[in-house]
Amino acid sequence: MITEEKDSLFMEEALPFWKKLTRQQQDTLLRETRPQHFHKGDRLHAGNADCSGVYLLQSGQVRTFIISETGREITLFRLFQRDICVFSASCMMPNINFEVYIDAERDTDALLIPTGIYRTLSEASPVVKEYTAQLVASRFSDVMWILEQALFSSFDKRLAAFLLEQSNIEESELLHITHEEIARHLGSAREVVTRMLKVFQSEEIVKLSRGGIQILSRRRLEELANR
Amino acid sequence: MITEEKDSLFMEEALPFWKKLTRQQQDTLLRETRPQHFHKGDRLHAGNADCSGVYLLQSGQVRTFIISETGREITLFRLFQRDICVFSASCMMPNINFEVYIDAERDTDALLIPTGIYRTLSEASPVVKEYTAQLVASRFSDVMWILEQALFSSFDKRLAAFLLEQSNIEESELLHITHEEIARHLGSAREVVTRMLKVFQSEEIVKLSRGGIQILSRRRLEELANR
Repeated sequence: MITEEKDSLFMEEALPFWKKLTRQQQDTLLRETRPQHFHKGDRLHAGNADCSGVYLLQSGQVRTFIISETGREITLFRLFQRDICVFSASCMMPNINFEVYIDAERDTDALLIPTGIYRTLSEASPVVKEYTAQLVASRFSDVMWILEQALFSSFDKRLAAFLLEQSNIEESELLHITHEEIARHLGSAREVVTRMLKVFQSEEIVKLSRGGIQILSRRRLEELANR
Repeated sequence: MITEEKDSLFMEEALPFWKKLTRQQQDTLLRETRPQHFHKGDRLHAGNADCSGVYLLQSGQVRTFIISETGREITLFRLFQRDICVFSASCMMPNINFEVYIDAERDTDALLIPTGIYRTLSEASPVVKEYTAQLVASRFSDVMWILEQALFSSFDKRLAAFLLEQSNIEESELLHITHEEIARHLGSAREVVTRMLKVFQSEEIVKLSRGGIQILSRRRLEELANR
């Protein structure tokens, strides 16, 4: 249940269909939605075993990824403040039959609309259904980008693009991320990441240290990423 | 315009929402839909340059694929009789921003509902909108399968699965397909396909000849594919 005004205001702003709902639908949402807090590293969603509902991210950062049978991972997309996480309710979408995992990459506050509530709302309101379909299509486009990158791009180009993305997210030129974590984002192995980072270091594009990865030349990374 | 009764009957059967349309909407569809014939190898859709509409496949077979900047391809999914091809109208879907190509793999008859007509219908009818969203979600699942295969599966496993799929499609143990074509389906290179097929041949799983690829042991292929 939403009790604080900041939460109800956030819902109104984050859900573009809010104003098109009936008063009763709005009341149901406010009554059934639950504020949730996740610590960095917590799992919000573990494949088809979970179907808790739709998360509205108030702060923090999550990543959606897949895991192979042998434990390899690749990040499909990351979500930030004001993003809406719909795959945590994928059991209500009959034709979505793949399993994704969702982890908090930072401490994250979210509002959870339980699956049953969202499903009922969606069945009653074509606007909600349409909005959900748009979200799914948008994630489909994200995944197509990942597919193209993974299949057709060289690893140096992908790593350069990832370092730039991470630098934008951390708002810093010093990235606090391990080689292992980068490998999991890119669907690669730690050794491959380390080897390529050392090539980048030898070309004075980055500097590696215990503290993380220091970007020395953003311009060179951009050249690599856009090549 | 649909003039033959077999075509109008086909439309009624192929479009699950037909009965939920108004008489006027049905009439518009029958008036504006056009029978089309494609020869094997013809391109139905060439990325974002095209947006002809939604194809209802009456016979034949098409494949949807992506192409890299360097000309490499990978097949995302294949469509057959009674399937509906919606990405040839992707310009009407605002959040689908990737480019796909669609080629006829066999001589193909299709009914084309032009994009403008389908868009108008979809905006007027939540049932059509919902059906389109379901189709997109279903293709999303297909693409996730391809992503998982391409990232996480060994090439022998993928090739075995492809040979079985192709055998089911051709309804034959003798596959009339070149190594180059297989490479394009799997996002690989011809040399890689040839090398693996020779390994399969040395293990008496297939026999290679000018005429094509003869499957000798379906059981062994299934073991490989399901490993």
